This record gives sequence, structure tokens and C-alpha cells, in this order.
Amino acid sequence: MHKEISEPSAASSVSGNGAFTPARLALRRVLIDTYHENVAYMHRDCEIYRAEGFKALSKVEVRTNGRHVLATLNVVEDPSIVACGELGLSIAAFAQMGVEDGHTATVSQAEPPASIGALHRKLNGERLGLDDFRTIVQDIAQHHYSKIELTAFVVACNRDELDREEVYYLTEAMIAAGKRLDWRENMVVDKHCIGGIPGNRTSMLVVPIVAAHGMLCPKTSSRAITSPAGTADTMEVLANVELSVEKLQDIVRKHRGCLAWGGTANLSPADDVLISVERPLSLDSPGQMVASILSKKVSAGSSHLVLDIPIGPTAKVRSMPDAQRLRRLCEYVARRLKLTLDVVITDGRQPIGLGIGPVLEARDVMRVLENDPRAPNDLRQKALRLAGRLIECDPDVRGGDGFSIARDILDSGRALTKMNDIIQAQGSKQFDHNQPQLGALTFEIHATEAGVVTGIDNLQLARIAGLAGAPKVKGAGVDLLCKLGANVQPGTLLYRVYADFTADLEFARQACKKSSGYTIGEASEMPHVFVEF
Amino acid sequence: MHKEISEPSAASSVSGNGAFTPARLALRRVLIDTYHENVAYMHRDCEIYRAEGFKALSKVEVRTNGRHVLATLNVVEDPSIVACGELGLSIAAFAQMGVEDGHTATVSQAEPPASIGALHRKLNGERLGLDDFRTIVQDIAQHHYSKIELTAFVVACNRDELDREEVYYLTEAMIAAGKRLDWRENMVVDKHCIGGIPGNRTSMLVVPIVAAHGMLCPKTSSRAITSPAGTADTMEVLANVELSVEKLQDIVRKHRGCLAWGGTANLSPADDVLISVERPLSLDSPGQMVASILSKKVSAGSSHLVLDIPIGPTAKVRSMPDAQRLRRLCEYVARRLKLTLDVVITDGRQPIGLGIGPVLEARDVMRVLENDPRAPNDLRQKALRLAGRLIECDPDVRGGDGFSIARDILDSGRALTKMNDIIQAQGSKQFDHNQPQLGALTFEIHATEAGVVTGIDNLQLARIAGLAGAPKVKGAGVDLLCKLGANVQPGTLLYRVYADFTADLEFARQACKKSSGYTIGEASEMPHVFVEF
Repeated sequence: MHKEISEPSAASSVSGNGAFTPARLALRRVLIDTYHENVAYMHRDCEIYRAEGFKALSKVEVRTNGRHVLATLNVVEDPSIVACGELGLSIAAFAQMGVEDGHTATVSQAEPPASIGALHRKLNGERLGLDDFRTIVQDIAQHHYSKIELTAFVVACNRDELDREEVYYLTEAMIAAGKRLDWRENMVVDKHCIGGIPGNRTSMLVVPIVAAHGMLCPKTSSRAITSPAGTADTMEVLANVELSVEKLQDIVRKHRGCLAWGGTANLSPADDVLISVERPLSLDSPGQMVASILSKKVSAGSSHLVLDIPIGPTAKVRSMPDAQRLRRLCEYVARRLKLTLDVVITDGRQPIGLGIGPVLEARDVMRVLENDPRAPNDLRQKALRLAGRLIECDPDVRGGDGFSIARDILDSGRALTKMNDIIQAQGSKQFDHNQPQLGALTFEIHATEAGVVTGIDNLQLARIAGLAGAPKVKGAGVDLLCKLGANVQPGTLLYRVYADFTADLEFARQACKKSSGYTIGEASEMPHVFVEF
Repeated sequence: MHKEISEPSAASSVSGNGAFTPARLALRRVLIDTYHENVAYMHRDCEIYRAEGFKALSKVEVRTNGRHVLATLNVVEDPSIVACGELGLSIAAFAQMGVEDGHTATVSQAEPPASIGALHRKLNGERLGLDDFRTIVQDIAQHHYSKIELTAFVVACNRDELDREEVYYLTEAMIAAGKRLDWRENMVVDKHCIGGIPGNRTSMLVVPIVAAHGMLCPKTSSRAITSPAGTADTMEVLANVELSVEKLQDIVRKHRGCLAWGGTANLSPADDVLISVERPLSLDSPGQMVASILSKKVSAGSSHLVLDIPIGPTAKVRSMPDAQRLRRLCEYVARRLKLTLDVVITDGRQPIGLGIGPVLEARDVMRVLENDPRAPNDLRQKALRLAGRLIECDPDVRGGDGFSIARDILDSGRALTKMNDIIQAQGSKQFDHNQPQLGALTFEIHATEAGVVTGIDNLQLARIAGLAGAPKVKGAGVDLLCKLGANVQPGTLLYRVYADFTADLEFARQACKKSSGYTIGEASEMPHVFVEF
């Protein structure tokens, strides 16, 4: 429906030779952050709005400067926001046009995104092919979908709506839509956890250990989406994590590892957009989780991956059959992608380590690396076992030797040296694990009865740390003084909450009043999990 | 999490007695029409935004004047839209607060809507109960859901995700969320069509016929959602259709019938909100369609309903098994609601009548009422049969006599008199069916080969009429000169398109170039449907 522009004019018109000219408007940057949805603003009295029969929430196509965006239309009645003859674009949409304020653009009713037919087939319960997923993911990455269409796609692919072949297609499509790093080595190792366990900062230990062993481990991590800290948030306490792709490559070439934020590398642009609807719905279906994780790893250039699936009553995966089903799905897709995958099912009954929140977790990590007696042993043990699995990918290492090699590297201080090299290379920040900069406001939660700690709710502790301000406020969070199996008396200190703002502290306090997240009972009531380590 | 306000203050604080005070901001009406989604605008540098840890697209709760709304947060960087210390609300959200610009309100992180747990259970594939649907529909009607949550609900209830008991629950919940009219009579009749057939304006004939027979038929209709005209759009050519509930009741008491727009009566507020996501996705699942139709009829006070399900290759329902399945679902839910239902499956192979678009359809209707020889016979016959079915609900009428009673009422001019009474009562407009005010711009589509018209695509003809400007431009649309079975030669005029704006005419012309919507072939290729009449 879109013809070449033959002449500038205010409204759509038909020129002498019968060519159709779409309407032109002056672009205006409207300083509203609509997140990952492009929004266009048009005045209700604008001649174009009337004449073109646009409708509120319909999609318009805006073209100028050789570029085009699709945007959802909001109708405006205030000329100081957008006047007649102007077309407003939200911050991100305007940036995509690459022009100055006032530049003219054509605007027309948008043809639906190319993949809408495929989306409708999925909504009708049909199975999609690789090309369908490619066009859908391409449209999503290019911001052609509205929030409504994004949500429809996510919900239509929820639960078991995708078979394993479709999960592979979706993964391939997500890889194709982004950049891909090439390290020019045969073995590039990585580890990943499906998430959901607060304090689980093993990456910051595994990377220096395996890099010290000589393996290439260019770790890119996300920031927290719903959790109180992602690896990138915690690493940011120690070092700069926002690195250009060139800088990242330099560091990895020199030190064999890095701990950077993955956002700058544009490895999976569709994933970032999908998260904008998955997060508010708390949706995390197996198919989309596997596609998201494996596509990012392949795009980051990994050849070998250890994937950690924690299992427990308040973990993402709550039963062994579910964990095994997820493992098989991961293994199937990884094989199709020629990615060597080692899935480990771990104990996810409680947070790992003591601290929850960036500064508290950085403290735990540094104590493990320093072999400090206050270091949390569960974090140390888990990191050593995961590092050991990765080290056994080395053809020169005998099966079963990985753990002790990893332990030697940690105990000898070589892991600490490697970590300090990486921190220096990325740009170090002031941090002393003996004097961590914690939030100035604090309160404590004590046991009200005697017994054994039989449950620590991952979700509630994450919620409390989040309300206290983590990860935005680096020093905010929760410091656990008792873990599963501890004997407590009335008054025993269970955990301490840190915050920087009064409101945050109060939100956290009220959440603790609703539920402390701790269950005290008898030792026999403690849930058992049978995990690989 | 929300406490009573103890004292005004800029940011959240804890007072001496430990009571928690949420942040206060000055409300500002932001003249942006975000349709059925409440949007709040806050400046990025606002102290509250920082301190409360709000996130883009998170939900905030705004309270003042004894009212509260939940709104999706957009972050703004332009103080002329919303300054620090202010909270902007989109037009509809602001109206819900019932205060002046500048009035202070408290703002806090919103607790999720009460029904989010039920929504998550539906997303997980569980079956919901009546109370679940009640809280969900209540939240939807009160604008507590974001577009993302609305879409998730609609998609999770798509296809066969609702069993028939759940469809009944959803219907009951939609009735409970709106107003309900009580006509204080034992028999209140209505007719409804599931839609999808252009030109199908039988209501404007059935209402005057059955009202002339003495039955109470208070017809409220919708405006077009995706179609080129709804009954309300077409009736509006002849009379005012936006009537207060009191006025509507006066007219019905006096004339036994009306043809009004249903929007003013607030009969199914949740439905209006759901449409805002169903429309852009073209979703129309059986369960939601049945709940939407039957809830509105019960809310409008109907006791007897004739429901028209057209069937054809380009109708909403395309096979007899699908039509029968839909019929059984309607009958099941109607029985639970104690609504007497008569489902008729009709011929939906092509548009009904000749005109598509408000003025053209009003012309056809008036010609049938005037017994004008140019009146389209298919429209007349279908209206008589539907009216006959309703008339047979009258216990004094013998089964099989309805059609001839309806025909007598029409042929005698009593239906025309009744229609004129209704038009006068609602407030008549200038209209002469011999000189309809059609669009000034026009083009014609001719047959390019000889043969028989074997197909007329309802969807394509509706699309062409819509692009030409219908229903916004009352005189725009398509006038059919040939119907199914007509013999044509190269050059025979198939239809004429009317528009008022050049751009509209061009959009319609380009759509006709892609496909005229007509298939010319041999008589034997014409699709057969075996319908009740």
C-alpha cells in the first residue's frame, strides 16, 4: 500500500500521474519513555487524523530518512504535547528514525507486520515452522509488534504449546535476529543458571577458576529483571560491567575471561523485547526459557555450557520430574544447535550464600576468593563443583578430576589473582569485603519460637530484598544469619535487612510482617531433595 | 500495604507514631487518549519516582477523593508534560478521579489486582470457578488490568480453553459487573446476529414488525467494531441513537420498541474493555463471543432471544459442525441463565441486501419497509423469517404462523408506521431513500470475463467499504449490483464504491486491485449451504 513519495504535501493526495502520496507531518520527539513499545502521538484535530481514518491504538507506519517504524497511535488533545501538522514519537521510537526534531516524515496506516499471519496460526493452536518463527522474531526485534501482539505471542507459546522442534526453531530464530560473537577458538565455555535462587553468585567464582585453568570463558550476564540482583548488578560493585564489544574482546583475549553485562552486545534483541511483557505477567514457560538461554549462549560464541537447574519447594522447578523434563528439552535443543551441554540439577531449597543484594553478594564472593573463614561454604562448594564440571570439558583432564583441580586453583589464590586481573581490566571500583558499603537503615528479624529452620522461602526473601531497594540501591538487601537446619531459640537473629530510603525500609518491614520467609519446626520436617550434588 | 493518610507530605515517610504515609503529588490531566488503559505519567527526576523504586510499565495506585485507580506508569523527561511533584493521568484515568487539576493524591506501588492469582491459574491451564471469573471481570470493568494482562486473559480463554461451565461463569460475571434493565413484563424479545455478514441490517426490520405485533422489543445495538457498519451506525442515519436510559425507557413504554446504541446503558462495561484487545488481534473465540452476546441480552432485560448464526465460506462460522457446536454452547449457557433461546443457522455465503455502509444500508431498509420494488428481496425474506420466529414466542400464535403474520405487518405498512414512530420518538434526521446522501467520490468495478457469480467474499467487501470510509463517513461504502448466481459478461457492473475523501477512495481502489472479492465461474461451482432458511 506504500508507494514512493513523489512530492511533499500535507495530506495524502493523488498526483497527476495517478501515483498515491501518503500524508506528511513534522516529527516531534515526545519525551515519554514507553519502554519497548513504539508510540506515536497525533492531535485529534489534525487534518490527517480525520482524513486517514486512523483509530486510537491502531498502528501507523512512519517513514523518513530511509527508515521506517511501526507505532501504536495515542490521540492527543494538547497542542503543547503535539500540535496539528506534527507527529509525536516516544523516546525510543524517535531514536530509531535517526533524524532531528522537525524533520518531515510520511505517515500512513500500517500494514500489519509480515508475521501476523503466523501469529494468528499460533493463536489458533497450529504448529509453526522455522520460517514462521524467523519472521515473528524479526518483527519483534524490530519493534513491529504492539504490547498486545507481544503478549498474544508469549501466551500462545506458554506451557506446552510449543513442541521441542518449535522450541529449537524459536531458538534459531532468536540467534538469527541478533549479533553473534566469534572467538576463533575450538572451545569456549560458559555456565548459566535458570535463576530463582537469591544469592546464587557462582559465576563470579567459576569464571576466574576456569580462566585460571586456561579455558576461554567470556561471561556476559543480565541485570536483575525481577530478582534483587543479577550477576551484572553484583559484579558492578567491583568493576565496570558496561563494556563495548571491542573492549570485551580485548579483555578476554588477554585474561581468558570476563564478567560483563550482556546488554551492549545486542546478542538477542528479541529477548529484551519479550521480557517487557513476560516480566509483568511473571510468565516463564519452559520453551521460552530454553530458547532465551540457549540463543544467548550460542550468540555469545559458547561451544560448551554447564546449565544449573536448582530444584526446591520455592525454586522455579519444584519436582524432579519437572527438572528432568526441562533437562531433556535443553539437551534436545542444544544438540540441534551443536552446543555441548552438561545439565546439573542442584539443591534449590534456600538462598545460596548469606547475602542477598549486590554489595552483600559481592562480599560473599570476595570472601570465598580470599579463603576468608567467614566465606559461606555452600557458595564455595557449589562454585567448585560447577567449575569442576567445566574443567572436565578439557580433553586433557580425567573424568572426576575437575573438582580437585578447581579447589587447588581456589585454595592457591590463583582464582583471586585472576579475578583481580579481570576487575582491573574492566575498570575496578573501590570495594573492601571487610567494610562493605551497606544501607544506612536496618532492621532485624528474630525467631519467635525454638526449633530448627526447616524452610527459607526463596521468593519471599527475594521480595523483601527487592522492596528494601536491591538492586537499584547497591547496599540494600538481606543478610542471612541462619540457614536451613540451624537450631534457633526465641530471639535468635534470623536475618538483617538493609536499605537507604525510609520508604523502602517500610515496604520491606511490612512484607516481613506478612511473612518472614522462615519456617521453624522439627528437623524431620526439612524437605529433602535428591540432586546430583 | 495502604494505610490511612495521617498528614500531607511530599514523599513517603514514617510519622512519630510509626504510621506509614504514602507519597503525595499534584494530579495533572494529560490530554492523551490511551483508550481503555489507564496511564500515569511521572517525571524521571521526580523525588518520588527515585525513592519509591517505581519502574517503567509498573502499576501505580493513585488515591484521592475517596476513589482510586490503578495505572501503568510511563516515565516522562519533559516538565511541560508533567513536572517533578506532579502526577499526570491520561484523559480517561483522570476522569475516574472526579477532581480538578492540581488536586493532590497519594501514589504508591500498586498491589496487583485482586484477581491476578486467578489469571495466573488460567494461564497455567487450570479451570476457574464462578468467583474467579467474578473477580477477574470486576477488575477488568474497573480498569485495573493493563493491556498486557487483558491480552493474557483473552488469549488464555481463546479457542477451547473455556469449557461450557466456564463460559456460563464468564457470562454471569459479565452480567454482574454491569447495570441490568428491568422492563417489568413477562416477555421481552430480542434478536441478535453473531456478525460477519456485511449489509445484514435485519434488526431495523424485525424491531418494527414485532413491536407492531405488540411485543416488547427494546433493541440496543453496538456501533461497528471492525465492520463497515453496525446497526447503531445505520440507524443513526435515520434517527438519534444516543439516548439516556430514561429516554429509552419512555420510548419503549410508548412504542414497544426502539433501535438505540447500547453504549450509554453501561450494560457490559467489561466487554467494552475486552474489545480493546480483541479487536487488534481479530480474536473472536466461541466462549468469549457467547459470553459477550448473552450477557448483554440478559443485562438489557431480554427473556426471549432469536440468535442468527450465518454460515458460509467467508462468514465467521464456515462449516455446519462448527455452527452446531456453537449452537449447543449458546443453548447450554442460555438455559443456565433462564433465557429462552432460538438459534437459527442462516445463509452467510454473501452480503445481505445491496448496500454496505450506513447510508446505503439505511436506503435498503427503508425500501423494504416502503415495499419499494427496488428493495433487496434477500434482506426482506430474512427479516420476515427472523421476525416470524420471534412472533411465534407469543403464546397466542400457532407454530408456523409467524412468517405470514410478519409479512402481513410489513405488506400492510404497519411496520413502516411503527418505524416512523420510533424514528420520531428517538429524534428523526433528514433522510430520503430515493436521494440518499452518498459519498461524492466514486469508482466502479466491472466483470472481466463472462460467467456466473460464484463467490462474494464478505471479508473483502467489508474491508473495501471500511477503507472507503464507512462507518465514520456515513455515505461511504459499497453498492452491490450483482449477487450470487448472477450471469455476467465482460464489462458488467459488479459494484460501485463511494467515498468522501481522496485518500479513502485510493485505499479502497488499491484493495479492489488486490482482489475485487468476486469470483466468476460456472453455476455448478457455487458453494451450497444447507441452512434452516
